[in-house]
Amino acid sequence: MSETCPAELIRFAGLLADEAGTVAQRYFRSGVLAEDKADESPVTIADRTAEAVMRERIEKEFPEHGIIGEEHGTVRRDADWVWVLDPIDGTKAFITGKPLFGTLIGLLHKNRPILGVINQPIIHDRWIGAAGHPTTLNDIPARTRRVDGGLAQAILQTTSPDMFKGDKYGQFNRVVGATKFTHWGGDCYGFGLLAAGFIDLAIESSLQLYDWVALAPVIENAGGIITDWQGRPLEVREGSFDVIACGDRALLDPVVALLNG
Amino acid sequence: MSETCPAELIRFAGLLADEAGTVAQRYFRSGVLAEDKADESPVTIADRTAEAVMRERIEKEFPEHGIIGEEHGTVRRDADWVWVLDPIDGTKAFITGKPLFGTLIGLLHKNRPILGVINQPIIHDRWIGAAGHPTTLNDIPARTRRVDGGLAQAILQTTSPDMFKGDKYGQFNRVVGATKFTHWGGDCYGFGLLAAGFIDLAIESSLQLYDWVALAPVIENAGGIITDWQGRPLEVREGSFDVIACGDRALLDPVVALLNG
Repeated sequence: MSETCPAELIRFAGLLADEAGTVAQRYFRSGVLAEDKADESPVTIADRTAEAVMRERIEKEFPEHGIIGEEHGTVRRDADWVWVLDPIDGTKAFITGKPLFGTLIGLLHKNRPILGVINQPIIHDRWIGAAGHPTTLNDIPARTRRVDGGLAQAILQTTSPDMFKGDKYGQFNRVVGATKFTHWGGDCYGFGLLAAGFIDLAIESSLQLYDWVALAPVIENAGGIITDWQGRPLEVREGSFDVIACGDRALLDPVVALLNG
Repeated sequence: MSETCPAELIRFAGLLADEAGTVAQRYFRSGVLAEDKADESPVTIADRTAEAVMRERIEKEFPEHGIIGEEHGTVRRDADWVWVLDPIDGTKAFITGKPLFGTLIGLLHKNRPILGVINQPIIHDRWIGAAGHPTTLNDIPARTRRVDGGLAQAILQTTSPDMFKGDKYGQFNRVVGATKFTHWGGDCYGFGLLAAGFIDLAIESSLQLYDWVALAPVIENAGGIITDWQGRPLEVREGSFDVIACGDRALLDPVVALLNG
């Protein structure tokens, strides 16, 4: 990307992360249901409330911007600037009390991801990636790492076997067998760790737009690459996505070959 | 268990956890290798060093106690009191930068688990379980939860598909299919969350003695049960273990039936 994300929007995304984080903190590991929503789980309440506070803030500060949210739908999809929100990515991690879920805040400019935040509000890890700026983890520049020794030395991350439908689990397992080891259960946090050079590969399936738009600027501005399972740039569209992220771009070709071979 | 673990030993186990935690903190997310051990990874150094500091402390305070350690072997196995140490359970979590690994400190009295600590030193979560005392998480009593609706409403936790050898992954997957959902990637931290009532079932395979001795008192004194895949009490012996932990004991029979069925 040749354009640079305005610093004002990066600061604003941080503010959104703060506000969503306050909501998530309130409901994480709380067995107690809100009295007026006794039929809803804490994670559902947290998800909806966190997105609502972010949307409210966007509507107030940038009423001309569009919003795509996991919980509350889409407005002004044709705007030049469109926020893409997943208030709690990793709801199963949230429910099971694991502080590795995250709030994902992405921003599209003319339909291309230009800014992304991955925020873990319980243990306070925040990745910010923005076009024209180095990716940071807790305000310190983060970089992906090179892998000496190719795929056999790469550490792979994914979330759960059940995200791979039909033949895809078999395709994925060909990559598992070619790497050093696989760690499970990461959701967005695993992509953040890839951007910070602790993981080399993340491969997932059945993602939605709001699951990956925030990840792309974090990974790309840390030196990595994010593509579909054919190694092509991810296209901003409706529907489901199969995703590869590589910290070291040299891993992409062999991974694509294994997935499709 | 009718006996009560002496408070002095509970305090001492906390001290061991503090010292091992200091070592783990030093090496977690450190890309830098110790200069004099350039061929070893940070996790290997952390593992060995953390166990060494715990053993040194035990030798000084309780020279008559035995020790079984993952890294540095066994001494005085026939002693009345034997410490069972896994300095870093979840080495893959440690390597990938996920703060869900743990230090496991177990104590056998006349070959029965009487005390267990699960300590996560990065985000500071510490479970202590001891015979005759309620299990605590960060000094607050922790309890497993009842599951209304049986197995179909239970949340299952495990670490990785590759821990299940041969037919065992198929057996395990019968339980996966019968539960509400499965979360992956927990190691000992998942067992701690079970003891705190966030997870209902944990099923693992290929565990060693040092992987589970510390877990048993944490789970049992929180109201749960830990058994082998036939539903029998775990026997303290050499070799490999297949383990079921249930927060609600009513889940055990249907799980055993599915695993063996």
